[in-house]
Amino acid sequence: MKIEGRSYRTIMATDAGTVRVIDQSRLPFEFAFRELATAADAARAIRDMVVRGAPLIGATAAYGLALAVREDPSDARIEEAARLLCATRPTAHNLAWALATLRTALAGVPPASRPDIAWREAARICDADVAQCRAIGEHGLSILKELWRRCARPLNVLTHCNAGWLACVDWGTALAPVYRAHDEGVPLHVWVDETRPRNQGASLTAFELAAHGVRHTVIADNLGGHLMQTGRVDVVIFGADRVSANGDVCNKVGSYLKALAAHDNGIPCYAALPESTIDWTLQSGAQIPIEERAARELTHITGLGPTGTLETVQVVPSSSPALNLAFDVTPARLLSGLVTERGVCAASRTGLLGLYPERRAAS
Amino acid sequence: MKIEGRSYRTIMATDAGTVRVIDQSRLPFEFAFRELATAADAARAIRDMVVRGAPLIGATAAYGLALAVREDPSDARIEEAARLLCATRPTAHNLAWALATLRTALAGVPPASRPDIAWREAARICDADVAQCRAIGEHGLSILKELWRRCARPLNVLTHCNAGWLACVDWGTALAPVYRAHDEGVPLHVWVDETRPRNQGASLTAFELAAHGVRHTVIADNLGGHLMQTGRVDVVIFGADRVSANGDVCNKVGSYLKALAAHDNGIPCYAALPESTIDWTLQSGAQIPIEERAARELTHITGLGPTGTLETVQVVPSSSPALNLAFDVTPARLLSGLVTERGVCAASRTGLLGLYPERRAAS
Repeated sequence: MKIEGRSYRTIMATDAGTVRVIDQSRLPFEFAFRELATAADAARAIRDMVVRGAPLIGATAAYGLALAVREDPSDARIEEAARLLCATRPTAHNLAWALATLRTALAGVPPASRPDIAWREAARICDADVAQCRAIGEHGLSILKELWRRCARPLNVLTHCNAGWLACVDWGTALAPVYRAHDEGVPLHVWVDETRPRNQGASLTAFELAAHGVRHTVIADNLGGHLMQTGRVDVVIFGADRVSANGDVCNKVGSYLKALAAHDNGIPCYAALPESTIDWTLQSGAQIPIEERAARELTHITGLGPTGTLETVQVVPSSSPALNLAFDVTPARLLSGLVTERGVCAASRTGLLGLYPERRAAS
Repeated sequence: MKIEGRSYRTIMATDAGTVRVIDQSRLPFEFAFRELATAADAARAIRDMVVRGAPLIGATAAYGLALAVREDPSDARIEEAARLLCATRPTAHNLAWALATLRTALAGVPPASRPDIAWREAARICDADVAQCRAIGEHGLSILKELWRRCARPLNVLTHCNAGWLACVDWGTALAPVYRAHDEGVPLHVWVDETRPRNQGASLTAFELAAHGVRHTVIADNLGGHLMQTGRVDVVIFGADRVSANGDVCNKVGSYLKALAAHDNGIPCYAALPESTIDWTLQSGAQIPIEERAARELTHITGLGPTGTLETVQVVPSSSPALNLAFDVTPARLLSGLVTERGVCAASRTGLLGLYPERRAAS
């Protein structure tokens, strides 16, 4: 995507053999990069949410493992680095998927050849993510176009958290259809859930949409239900961190509440994701581990202070504990469908296997 | 209620003939008072949310009108002051109710006698609110005790926004049963929705519960659904700003989402309110005006800065518009009941008329 006319991906290999990522912890007020030179750098970037979004977490983990392999291509080092990277965040399936993909590519390869193969495989994972997100955009575009044909006004899309290009390598999952529709001239407007406690909607989705020129309005996470009750939302679309084989969608905490409201008001609600987000080993979303993050992410908020620098203020009194669980599970029954790189399917085992028939034997 | 062992009401007449209110815009980090000497002071305090909470808005408006009457007891001045006060906030029914109650008490009274009567009537409204909230506490206590009998562990209550003593003159509506249960030795724990965008949960409910020694945990508004799905919520209880004659409940934005989640998980969900919150003239919640407040309440957040003073930071980029609607309507069908000073009833016309039979003719 473009920022002030210049194209970027969220993660890029440099000529110096390092990996450069957009530092998302400083957005929307600072657009800066961070260099990752080691697997530990990559692990820290994932854990501290310098990079975030399930597909981008996977891409960063792949490059992190490739950085480790370059230092030491031994089996022991690969094992250790993979374990370090995998432990950074428990919910997003793309993380384990990317590490497994890299390790499969390295299996049986002599150590001397491993660094090049690992690096190329990480790059391939990134390129594949871009292609998949572009395909998700195409399939989602059909849905948005069809919905727009039925409204006599710009289409109102509601999204939760950030599942745009910043969450991926490029394009995004939930926002890919929005960008494609905008570029095709479909008039639309996006309701952007602020997405507490880390404000990825207010800070990342709003930034992305503004940079691309897409009309949008930031709202409190609390407002979406009322907007749906009063006819101001035509479709809800969000991303996913892990999808179980039955079509339950684990995504940023609060997605479930929006899906409930969409269902209660007869509004279509979709999750958009590449296959790397699907955990075929889980029979239901109840089995997905839900990450608990530091309470401080809720009790303190960072923003632009009056002097123009980033400042942090405390909003919960120290006498009160806080709990910060980062994800929830939207049951498949509340979803109108899943938008993947292969097309749109029902959120169900049958729906998913229709798009991924090669998984029939495994499941 | 007590703060560090000393009893307070949120609004108190002073010997100097002014009205002293707790400045809720500075909580939880500063416990300070503000003096209201004129109707304009009272109007400003309501509009700027120095005082908030439907019952307290009503009490403040009553004293505001009494302050105006003392300056000038003419019909014209009463009319003008009532209009000023009534326009401060559109949603809470208690505001119009309190002003109408005061005007009824003054009707036909010679101007010279009006100041005393108005002052006494405002004091009576405050005392009545305290008694009603205490009664709400008793009726709600029965519900909590019964639910607790069925759990083998402390009862988990989830509440949204602040409907505690800070929202009323004393005791609170939704929190009155919690305080009563705590005082009776029912072990309980409260999940406190932070309640964006103004954070009344994090700043007021957390402060209240900590001051009273009630166990609680602050959570993002997004988390309640997940907690309900995973069995960690036994009952949801929130207040109300206006209830229509059919039992629809207008309350702080986001209440509807929690009611949906409670309904989806078979968890009881109650609204607690005194009769002054019921608008018998409205047939459905869809007719309730929803206040739009400044976008800045969403785009900027005030908290305790690193130097120990209140500071404001910007969290939404200036390039993105924001919409801040302050209330939503929970349809009666999602509620297990309404807890009023007269008892608990079904959220329905029949249920309400059962408790308030004198309204049968009017409705």
